[in-house]
Amino acid sequence: MKRIAILGSTGSIGRSTLSVVESYPERFQVTTLAAGNNVELAFEQAVRWKPRLVSSAKEEDAAALSKRLRAAGLAEVEVVHGAAGTVRVATHPEVDFVVSAIVGVSGLEATYEAVRAGKTVGLANKECLVVAGELITAEARKQGKPLLPIDSEHNAVHQCLRGGRMDEVERIWLTASGGPFLKTPKAEFASISVQQALNHPTWKMGKRITIDSATLMNKGFEVIEACRLFNVPPQQVQVVVHPQSTIHSLVEFVDGSILAQISVTDMRLPILYALTYPERIPSDLRFAISDLRHLDFCPPDMAKFPCLHLAYEAAATGGAKTIALNAADEVAVAAFLEEQIGFEDIPRIIEETMTATPAGHLESIQGVLKLDAEARLLASEITKQHTRKGSPVRAIS
Amino acid sequence: MKRIAILGSTGSIGRSTLSVVESYPERFQVTTLAAGNNVELAFEQAVRWKPRLVSSAKEEDAAALSKRLRAAGLAEVEVVHGAAGTVRVATHPEVDFVVSAIVGVSGLEATYEAVRAGKTVGLANKECLVVAGELITAEARKQGKPLLPIDSEHNAVHQCLRGGRMDEVERIWLTASGGPFLKTPKAEFASISVQQALNHPTWKMGKRITIDSATLMNKGFEVIEACRLFNVPPQQVQVVVHPQSTIHSLVEFVDGSILAQISVTDMRLPILYALTYPERIPSDLRFAISDLRHLDFCPPDMAKFPCLHLAYEAAATGGAKTIALNAADEVAVAAFLEEQIGFEDIPRIIEETMTATPAGHLESIQGVLKLDAEARLLASEITKQHTRKGSPVRAIS
Repeated sequence: MKRIAILGSTGSIGRSTLSVVESYPERFQVTTLAAGNNVELAFEQAVRWKPRLVSSAKEEDAAALSKRLRAAGLAEVEVVHGAAGTVRVATHPEVDFVVSAIVGVSGLEATYEAVRAGKTVGLANKECLVVAGELITAEARKQGKPLLPIDSEHNAVHQCLRGGRMDEVERIWLTASGGPFLKTPKAEFASISVQQALNHPTWKMGKRITIDSATLMNKGFEVIEACRLFNVPPQQVQVVVHPQSTIHSLVEFVDGSILAQISVTDMRLPILYALTYPERIPSDLRFAISDLRHLDFCPPDMAKFPCLHLAYEAAATGGAKTIALNAADEVAVAAFLEEQIGFEDIPRIIEETMTATPAGHLESIQGVLKLDAEARLLASEITKQHTRKGSPVRAIS
Repeated sequence: MKRIAILGSTGSIGRSTLSVVESYPERFQVTTLAAGNNVELAFEQAVRWKPRLVSSAKEEDAAALSKRLRAAGLAEVEVVHGAAGTVRVATHPEVDFVVSAIVGVSGLEATYEAVRAGKTVGLANKECLVVAGELITAEARKQGKPLLPIDSEHNAVHQCLRGGRMDEVERIWLTASGGPFLKTPKAEFASISVQQALNHPTWKMGKRITIDSATLMNKGFEVIEACRLFNVPPQQVQVVVHPQSTIHSLVEFVDGSILAQISVTDMRLPILYALTYPERIPSDLRFAISDLRHLDFCPPDMAKFPCLHLAYEAAATGGAKTIALNAADEVAVAAFLEEQIGFEDIPRIIEETMTATPAGHLESIQGVLKLDAEARLLASEITKQHTRKGSPVRAIS
């Protein structure tokens, strides 16, 4: 019986994780949950799973949740809150496996502490690897525990890497859907509207990740994640555009063999893989090979998508530069969504923020959070200079 | 230093193996060669590689070869001949790895003896697994030595299988180019000419294998080979038509993940893989992922290609039925190439031969050869009944 903590249990990955756990009651047990702000769903999850510990973001939510659980006869479920509560959820002594699925830098500390506590961690939080990858992977190596990727690309890479040793890897190839502007001429990029950018051809996702997919920054983040997770330099990580997203990623070995991973696009599959690794267990998440029809591939156009190039630069330098990349992207995308800047201002703001950020190694998660806050301030200042004439500059979270 | 025997050194796989050995002189050494009938090339190879032992098919060739080698100052190269000579090449005490690349049932005995002698064997000979797979794989298991496939499909499967345990495999998917009649309506099959059937869209190969590709029997043989090599029942081996042959094969795991192998179409790659397994070493056999364009897939049409269905039947029963399948196919294809029968007679003759052959388990290689000879006679008789009116029945080898 694997005892599981879910950081971000009310989000999309958290709910998918619970759906996987539900399918295999003989294998998995929910031991702790960190639920965020959705108290109603947190209550339902606590009633359903009877964990040892539930955490909410706010203190008042925790008090309300505790009261409702007592009323429901579940006084044995301890309720905690805030950053410290999330860390307790992540490091609970009875937990074996931690699913890290809190969005944003607020998932960093608890994930790092889970690794430090010797837990096996399944990573669905992008920031863990993009802004603190050096720290987290070093700690995981020290603990001798695997970091298992819970996203389709890196999970695919993880599977393909089983075909050889790490020193037999020539390159990792991440596939990219290409986003809505794959075939849009560069001359039209300046006038791309928010509505156009939110109209992703294949995925329905949150707004920031949809814009990040349109700029290919999302793929850039994945390049950085791959570098950190698999301990390879950026030149060993390549991107290939594959609009059908049938092949989730590939690994090229030194002998010239390439392994590719294919599966349904369902997050439950990488979650199941991570939860059961190194085993595989039967699921009904079948991809019908007989339904395979056409697969297309083309190289990414770095001139059209400078964000991808910026991510490679950040990956090579690491440390404060990747923090600046991530923070500036979040600020610039928010400004674009508010129609304060144009589509092509996004990479400009990121580049200027990166240039203005001194290189620096990461010492601690607290240091990462400090650099992140500084980079956001800097990016906000730079964004103001790009704000469209006449358009009000609104507060950027 | 891995010491290598090549059975069939003057054939295509044999020459490719020597090309691989030539690229890695620090890793591989040619210890023995079985050369067949091409004495001129056998002499050149012996001069170039200075093996301990060379074998030719015929006694008189061996005598001539021996004389020429003495004249060339290579008296230390021992020359032997015939079936016994091939067995000596395969079982030489200084040999570590045997490449089995003699075409046809004449490669059986030496390959089996190599396995029995505890050698690691790389299999390029189809018949070893199609007609004697049960015997050879049982012996390899007994010896605790791997049988490494040297053909693109099974080599691809072998690589993909590294992504999990055998009991985690749901299905093996062999890709098929589909041959020249993929899009030909079934109504036109009766009038397919030899010339049309020899016009394979992608490969230039020998005549029998080209016809076997046109009937999909070649893929049927590969289904049987996969069953034997990977010890799975036929229902766990599926075929998918993929005209570009970019993906060489796939493995579907129980969790729903599929791994696929991609590489250049160059036999040196599976040879290198087999020779170095479980390691991978750098090669210049690169597949340019950036050149990936369109990949197409469709299910095979069993009604148009009954040979594939017959191979599944033979795979399920095994033993004498697979021997009948292979022998009858060779006889029928020869008759088709001689324009004695039509394209659609090929599966008819195979089916009738299989039906008329009693099921039977394999006891020994000699027993296999006896059943093979009987099946050929039977298939020749049946072929006569299908011979086109007015067309002379020629001797079928």
